[in-house]
Amino acid sequence: MTIAQRSEITATLDPDNLAGSDAKICQAARVSTLGSAAAESGEASGLINYLMRDRHGSPFEHGQLSFLVEAPIFVAREFMRHRAGWSYNETSGRYRELVPVFYIPDRKRPLVQEGKPGAYTFVDGTHEQYGITRWEHEQAYRTAWSSYQRMLKAGVAKEIARDVLPVGLFTSFYATCNPRSLMHFLSLRTRVPSATFPSFPQQEIEKVAQDMEEAFAEHFPLTYIAYTNNGRVCP
Amino acid sequence: MTIAQRSEITATLDPDNLAGSDAKICQAARVSTLGSAAAESGEASGLINYLMRDRHGSPFEHGQLSFLVEAPIFVAREFMRHRAGWSYNETSGRYRELVPVFYIPDRKRPLVQEGKPGAYTFVDGTHEQYGITRWEHEQAYRTAWSSYQRMLKAGVAKEIARDVLPVGLFTSFYATCNPRSLMHFLSLRTRVPSATFPSFPQQEIEKVAQDMEEAFAEHFPLTYIAYTNNGRVCP
Amino acid sequence: MTIAQRSEITATLDPDNLAGSDAKICQAARVSTLGSAAAESGEASGLINYLMRDRHGSPFEHGQLSFLVEAPIFVAREFMRHRAGWSYNETSGRYRELVPVFYIPDRKRPLVQEGKPGAYTFVDGTHEQYGITRWEHEQAYRTAWSSYQRMLKAGVAKEIARDVLPVGLFTSFYATCNPRSLMHFLSLRTRVPSATFPSFPQQEIEKVAQDMEEAFAEHFPLTYIAYTNNGRVCP
Amino acid sequence: MTIAQRSEITATLDPDNLAGSDAKICQAARVSTLGSAAAESGEASGLINYLMRDRHGSPFEHGQLSFLVEAPIFVAREFMRHRAGWSYNETSGRYRELVPVFYIPDRKRPLVQEGKPGAYTFVDGTHEQYGITRWEHEQAYRTAWSSYQRMLKAGVAKEIARDVLPVGLFTSFYATCNPRSLMHFLSLRTRVPSATFPSFPQQEIEKVAQDMEEAFAEHFPLTYIAYTNNGRVCP
Repeated sequence: MTIAQRSEITATLDPDNLAGSDAKICQAARVSTLGSAAAESGEASGLINYLMRDRHGSPFEHGQLSFLVEAPIFVAREFMRHRAGWSYNETSGRYRELVPVFYIPDRKRPLVQEGKPGAYTFVDGTHEQYGITRWEHEQAYRTAWSSYQRMLKAGVAKEIARDVLPVGLFTSFYATCNPRSLMHFLSLRTRVPSATFPSFPQQEIEKVAQDMEEAFAEHFPLTYIAYTNNGRVCP
Repeated sequence: MTIAQRSEITATLDPDNLAGSDAKICQAARVSTLGSAAAESGEASGLINYLMRDRHGSPFEHGQLSFLVEAPIFVAREFMRHRAGWSYNETSGRYRELVPVFYIPDRKRPLVQEGKPGAYTFVDGTHEQYGITRWEHEQAYRTAWSSYQRMLKAGVAKEIARDVLPVGLFTSFYATCNPRSLMHFLSLRTRVPSATFPSFPQQEIEKVAQDMEEAFAEHFPLTYIAYTNNGRVCP
Repeated sequence: MTIAQRSEITATLDPDNLAGSDAKICQAARVSTLGSAAAESGEASGLINYLMRDRHGSPFEHGQLSFLVEAPIFVAREFMRHRAGWSYNETSGRYRELVPVFYIPDRKRPLVQEGKPGAYTFVDGTHEQYGITRWEHEQAYRTAWSSYQRMLKAGVAKEIARDVLPVGLFTSFYATCNPRSLMHFLSLRTRVPSATFPSFPQQEIEKVAQDMEEAFAEHFPLTYIAYTNNGRVCP
Repeated sequence: MTIAQRSEITATLDPDNLAGSDAKICQAARVSTLGSAAAESGEASGLINYLMRDRHGSPFEHGQLSFLVEAPIFVAREFMRHRAGWSYNETSGRYRELVPVFYIPDRKRPLVQEGKPGAYTFVDGTHEQYGITRWEHEQAYRTAWSSYQRMLKAGVAKEIARDVLPVGLFTSFYATCNPRSLMHFLSLRTRVPSATFPSFPQQEIEKVAQDMEEAFAEHFPLTYIAYTNNGRVCP
């Protein structure tokens, strides 16, 4: 029984399903002050900074970014709590036989939490703790996968057999957002000391967020600068 | 005091702020059944028809259409009741001096309603009714605009002076949606005999909807066909 | 032709359509940490303050407040830009003949704006400016109402005749929200020096917000204190 | 190592966090036609049937129902795809040690699917298939729970140790909706032959839906009758 172990969690921008730009955000904002004559001209960075600072959020909704996310189920669960301005399609365990790729934390993942709920700090595990973590993950994953396979072979429906699969199983989903809903996500799912409001995301979802932040910075550079310069507060 | 009269109500697609396609909708749907291997291949029209018919709505959210709408305030009021999957930026009467363009129903607009609330039928007005309608609109519009202008000249704030302006004044707004939220809009704001569910939109917002429907049909042709073939029910 | 002038803008809580409490917010939050054993016990104010400060917003959604708002159309227009967590039903100019109640700013309303768009300051008008404002409002309102009435009498449909009615006309709407969406509204529609983020609402919508804030403070006192103690930032 | 097996999936109405009624829905609808004079009088069932049939959905949003749902993780995953008009708080595997209650399909659950994706039919399993299903579930659940426990004992953080726990583990969440968002849920998550649109929910989430439908029918009886009489189409 071969299963694959994976520690890399990724969000990949779909470059063919992208809309909007800093200029479009400005154009939308200028409809407020110029009406239908609003065009893509004028100084953009000052306007965007003003919108961000004074929380005029609506102009930041007129754009689209889509990502293919590959992450364990427990990350998908946290991700899909984001409702406004987010759309999802995820691999279905009812419609298809799933594939045996499982999440194993790599050696750099701090294993031990200190502090209290809501504000944990994480520190490295001992060599032994890493060993236990890896061993228990592998063993549990293999057992679960074997049970899943045996039930499928016995003719049991996929939607029932999958009960035994762990939340560390990788899933894929296609997620679409706009710059505003993305900033809201980033403000909660990244941990950045300079942020006005502290956040305590689990590191696995933070990896997804970091990939998305990079794509955001590339395609909406002035918006991204204004976001970071204003304390990473979603307008 | 010159004011402009206008009977044309329009939604103009912004061709530079567009994302998605029938193929992308299929790709998003295939993530459910194929996982991250989903690519833009395979027969699209059958898949789209299946999604529409069985109301799998989420794949239709991964696209963007943006429109500049020019319409009277009373149309904007109805329009912005649409919340989910819609983003707006509208000309502000607080931030700018408004421009004197006012809606006058043209000679083809039926003036007289029959039947009961919720299911009105409209029939043509008499020649005299059209004359009265035009005359009263013009007179009221001129009076309101003159009052607005005199208050502005006296130094009264724009946000107060605009109190007197009528809901027939044209406004401009930039509206962004996705194919799913657009279909929901169309199902409520167009009156088509073949639709599974009847709708009774005011004709002025129906004009906006017709422009948007045309852009939708052009950029998402298979989705559009499936929508009309399945009774114009939003999935 | 008798029309009524009104300067009072109000939101009235519907005491018979209310759900939730500080205790329920705590109970919802404790499901996260205690599971189905969560009950309405334990120290509430500390928990609520923690949720507010660290922006755990979701527990604040499990409650309901409904208001009957009576305000000019231009206030309703700003209000209904709030989409997430808000539901509305408003008096329809298509379905009923409207009633002639119009907004006139009272003597305390500052009439003159200074500064630039987005950050206006308002100062009192002169005696003459108040006179002009009142006169122009009355004249424009009367003219509009007369035109509306004459069109109705001539048999023109309500939805057409209302084109001429001004945005200063009073409308009524029933608005339902939850504590979280209400805090978001308040953070944008009130101007309070102690707020972390400045807002510049028009004074007319701020009156509505103040009524709602009072009802909020009464029915969710600990949540309200945490909201104000944490800079009036919506979690 | 003791783990609990459970086949019952439930949604329990919170009777202390309830708002709205058929009468309130009517009152909200009448604001459209009567303005602020709308009161709780008049014939309700005809009005509600009209609203439902002609898809005037907004009046159905002015109420609240909250449920404590106890269901396996895979059900929670499907449930939380519902975004508009839904609020959630779920037991966190980051903040607390989870409890060993696992889902096992009972003997009445059909195990074998026939047909194609999207329109499966389910038929009973053989005695042997039930035996395999039960055995594999138990074995996999025990192994996973043991691994989880050993990692916790070794000092590994809860949020990492839980990777190995299966989607058949029970979770608890508190879910709040309004009559409209509930009807949308029911139309997709129940399978009723008389429905205008067919749905193919997994039976486990249908159990949750059935509990919620019962509570809905009790507290909003006229709305519920109109919903079923109009083909279970969410307005």
